[in-house]
Amino acid sequence: MAGKKADIWQPVIERPEAAGRVILVCEHASNHIPDQWDDLGLTADQRQAHIAWDPGALGVARGLAERLDATLIHAPVSRLVYDLNRAPDMAGAMPARSEVHDIPGNAAITATERLARTEAIYLPWTNGLHNLIANRIALGRRPVVITIHSFTPIYHGRQRLVEFGVIHDADAHLSVAILDAAHRKTRLQAELNSPYSAADDVTHTLRVHATPYGLPNAMLEIRNDLIATPEAQAKMAETLAPVLNMGIEEIQKQAKAS
Amino acid sequence: MAGKKADIWQPVIERPEAAGRVILVCEHASNHIPDQWDDLGLTADQRQAHIAWDPGALGVARGLAERLDATLIHAPVSRLVYDLNRAPDMAGAMPARSEVHDIPGNAAITATERLARTEAIYLPWTNGLHNLIANRIALGRRPVVITIHSFTPIYHGRQRLVEFGVIHDADAHLSVAILDAAHRKTRLQAELNSPYSAADDVTHTLRVHATPYGLPNAMLEIRNDLIATPEAQAKMAETLAPVLNMGIEEIQKQAKAS
Repeated sequence: MAGKKADIWQPVIERPEAAGRVILVCEHASNHIPDQWDDLGLTADQRQAHIAWDPGALGVARGLAERLDATLIHAPVSRLVYDLNRAPDMAGAMPARSEVHDIPGNAAITATERLARTEAIYLPWTNGLHNLIANRIALGRRPVVITIHSFTPIYHGRQRLVEFGVIHDADAHLSVAILDAAHRKTRLQAELNSPYSAADDVTHTLRVHATPYGLPNAMLEIRNDLIATPEAQAKMAETLAPVLNMGIEEIQKQAKAS
Repeated sequence: MAGKKADIWQPVIERPEAAGRVILVCEHASNHIPDQWDDLGLTADQRQAHIAWDPGALGVARGLAERLDATLIHAPVSRLVYDLNRAPDMAGAMPARSEVHDIPGNAAITATERLARTEAIYLPWTNGLHNLIANRIALGRRPVVITIHSFTPIYHGRQRLVEFGVIHDADAHLSVAILDAAHRKTRLQAELNSPYSAADDVTHTLRVHATPYGLPNAMLEIRNDLIATPEAQAKMAETLAPVLNMGIEEIQKQAKAS
């Protein structure tokens, strides 16, 4: 599993030998801040809030991994130490402010510290995910890459009505098929590129790992009040598993027809 | 430097601490076929031919690295064992045939062997290059990525008149600026996307390592009869170094103006 090893935080990989086609990715699974960063100067409440992680996302991702027989890779540390869905020079990678909260431990970050976190967290993650994907490709098993996120129902004081967002990078095929399946199979308020889109630079993982290899991919966003308990997470996984299967079947049908 | 270590062939990285902005990449620098692949069943002549490597490219790349104060990363083994400018499931990654030559050692390659070569050669390469790039980005020194290739003057019996090709991936800015500088500063027969283009799936390195990070990038192709000796390679580096500098200056000017 995860853990510190010579100051390197490796990604956590579950079900590495899974037979299904999907690789699930959860960049914001954890709110763990390793000791050396002294809680980044945050209160206990702040460290539980959505700024530190995507609450509920890991539970849903695990439920989906089981139901889809998928491999799951997830983050070992909080997005406030390093946000794995951001390049090392993006402001959001080690943010000095997130929503309405200042992050004291990131306020005056030096280039040396930026490099140290990149080497300790971002590089092991990107190498680990890349190896997983490239190995599947080598075996002739081109994976489908789906990232699992949650979002806060209230952002900057404004309520968000969308419940399930599907965000695409350069290739929209899978996202559109998943959205269509969600409309047909669920009562979720489901929308494309909501509550934000690739234009907001939120598809870094897909852009680095899926798009260059031409792999089908999508980013899922679930409103976190719907997945606040383990039971709610399991129920959401039960709802979304057939939606993802239907979306994947649809693009496979399209690929055969073309 | 390069070398075998527990059956892993690491990329060779020269001048890792160079202060310049460019990272030079030479995926086809070597015609070395490690013992375990028994020369892939090829004759000595075939192992010297362009199908095994890009003759002269490493010499030019080293000359450019010195003149641009650039870091250089190059391949430790022949492209016929693993072509580092190809994804693991592309036919050209471990080709059964190259131009007019059958490659016996690649004729009946199994999925297991494909995975073994991917793990031994492709993954160390992609991880090494990615780490180099991400570390520069973390330090606020966004690199320019330029790959250096050579091509054969006669392909499938047909003579190629182009001497210097500049090939772009999604972002053409740097390639266009380099081509313009070549026309102004040299007498080389220089062309865009020649003798082939991204549509022929030859920009894998740029697509995986430069495009997702929005880094300026270009692929250079030099006709190999012009760089057949160390002297000719040094002369070509002397010709091209100011061309690359002029191209980079031009896109920096454009970036400031926009």
